[in-house]
Amino acid sequence: MDKELEILRKYFSPLAKNKESLGLRNDAAFLDLKKKMVVSTDMMVEGQHFDKNYDPKILAKKLLRINLSDIAAMGANPYGYLLNLSIPNSSPIQWIKRFVSGLREDHKKFKLKLFGGDLSKSPIIFLSASIFGIVKKDIHKNMTAREGSEIFVSGNLGDASLGYNLLNKKKKDLYEIDDRSKEYLLKKLYIPNPRILLGSSLVGCVDFCTDISDGLLKELKKISFFSGLQANIFFSKIPLSKVVKTILRSSNNKKKIWNIIFAGGEDYELLFSTNKEKEEILKKRNKEKIYKIGFFSKGKGVKIFDSNGKKIQFKNEGFSHF
Amino acid sequence: MDKELEILRKYFSPLAKNKESLGLRNDAAFLDLKKKMVVSTDMMVEGQHFDKNYDPKILAKKLLRINLSDIAAMGANPYGYLLNLSIPNSSPIQWIKRFVSGLREDHKKFKLKLFGGDLSKSPIIFLSASIFGIVKKDIHKNMTAREGSEIFVSGNLGDASLGYNLLNKKKKDLYEIDDRSKEYLLKKLYIPNPRILLGSSLVGCVDFCTDISDGLLKELKKISFFSGLQANIFFSKIPLSKVVKTILRSSNNKKKIWNIIFAGGEDYELLFSTNKEKEEILKKRNKEKIYKIGFFSKGKGVKIFDSNGKKIQFKNEGFSHF
Repeated sequence: MDKELEILRKYFSPLAKNKESLGLRNDAAFLDLKKKMVVSTDMMVEGQHFDKNYDPKILAKKLLRINLSDIAAMGANPYGYLLNLSIPNSSPIQWIKRFVSGLREDHKKFKLKLFGGDLSKSPIIFLSASIFGIVKKDIHKNMTAREGSEIFVSGNLGDASLGYNLLNKKKKDLYEIDDRSKEYLLKKLYIPNPRILLGSSLVGCVDFCTDISDGLLKELKKISFFSGLQANIFFSKIPLSKVVKTILRSSNNKKKIWNIIFAGGEDYELLFSTNKEKEEILKKRNKEKIYKIGFFSKGKGVKIFDSNGKKIQFKNEGFSHF
Repeated sequence: MDKELEILRKYFSPLAKNKESLGLRNDAAFLDLKKKMVVSTDMMVEGQHFDKNYDPKILAKKLLRINLSDIAAMGANPYGYLLNLSIPNSSPIQWIKRFVSGLREDHKKFKLKLFGGDLSKSPIIFLSASIFGIVKKDIHKNMTAREGSEIFVSGNLGDASLGYNLLNKKKKDLYEIDDRSKEYLLKKLYIPNPRILLGSSLVGCVDFCTDISDGLLKELKKISFFSGLQANIFFSKIPLSKVVKTILRSSNNKKKIWNIIFAGGEDYELLFSTNKEKEEILKKRNKEKIYKIGFFSKGKGVKIFDSNGKKIQFKNEGFSHF
């Protein structure tokens, strides 16, 4: 038996014990559910999204979770995924074992099924997954807000992007923090928590819903553009962790820190808006904490105000690959 | 507008003018067909599957077609796909324009829809697609043959793999051919022809159906193993193009050439087996030419016989990444 086939049989087949995968024997998987679905794909490239020394278990979880975050943003429930894995030839078995252990843990946590995939070698690590979510009644289809609607996020911003900066040699001296805080930020970067329950509980009570993978500013700019409205955001309302608050207090370049919080990306919280009326239904349905950070008004673009009501401009408006 | 967004809007949005893509505005695409589907994914990595100087238009077509070949092997009809594209930062616009022109042409040819995707940069080119096929009544679900069934392929073998060897510096001196023949082999390598009509016409009249992407020997070995049967193949029955016949005639290492034909992969023809009874139905339904190359009998593994009935052993049994 060749090594590729051995890897498939030994490590990936046990993850694909579902009827859809057809035992990974065929050229494709068979989805006979006949349900409405949402589908999305995200990739992670060594050197671009992560460093080659990343723990493969973390990479596996992050790959699944950034894809699951898209399912959450649509208000759907996780179903399964296709996996593409391309890794260097040097000692792949240990790497694969650990990668698979990460997949296995998140299979259980999110009730996920592996439908199939493709395996290759390459000088750097390349990962992608295509994820399938099942739609209950409806999804978040609109990407437009309404005038007067209030803007919410589902959790603290900036943790993951400040964690990312800790790994970036050019930027690591921007702030000093203790080891425990560092660990906290890195954990938030490495293992995002897709807001699946929240996403589906919001269906029908919000104008739009999206995840903040590319940074709050970029996502808001997009929604403002689609809606022909102005997004007004208040510094003082942005939910921040204790660690980020400490960084802000001790930093001598607060604006740079705020820029990372607003535009750094990687947070994978949900962003949505709703009006007063639907906010009541939303509160009844949803048990998770959500944070009001601003509102939409006539106008265009994104305006950010500090605690004195002064408008702030940022240079960097969000993550972009090119 | 940042460059990534501009690339999406200018080049990819026009390919995604279908209701499923939701205008590429959302975090996922919405498949509300409620039909049985098959799904598969394949990737292509620079240095592994192709050279960095490959025409991006050819890469786009090949990416779609190797994925479509999996849909064909299942007996399903093309529906749409998700695309992952990671390319170097250097002058990507020209590259992307040409890549997109390849996608556009094959969208028309195969009635394909782009549902969504992900874009990144990387030092080398990574491509992957996840493809969706719609099932009419049934698919090729079994991967087992029956004793006595005759084995067929859908077209010439060896063209693409001998073309691949022309690009491989180590192996290029194995045979000498004129420029027109070289062009022919490379075209077969670059732009495979997924057997979609044939694949779906075979549903219900064959034991199994698969494509020969990793080489005839490897695919047959797999089927023999799953079936607990022996596959018997005859040299003289293998369909070969004029170019390959000429190479065989002029080569001083015929066995090496045969090894490439049997194990080189990249052919993307269909392999299937059927019994006498169903062969009649098959012939009525199917207008494409098919080629009988052997049969299944009691025993195990794959046995290949030359024109004198002598058994032949090959060292290399198929393409493997590791």
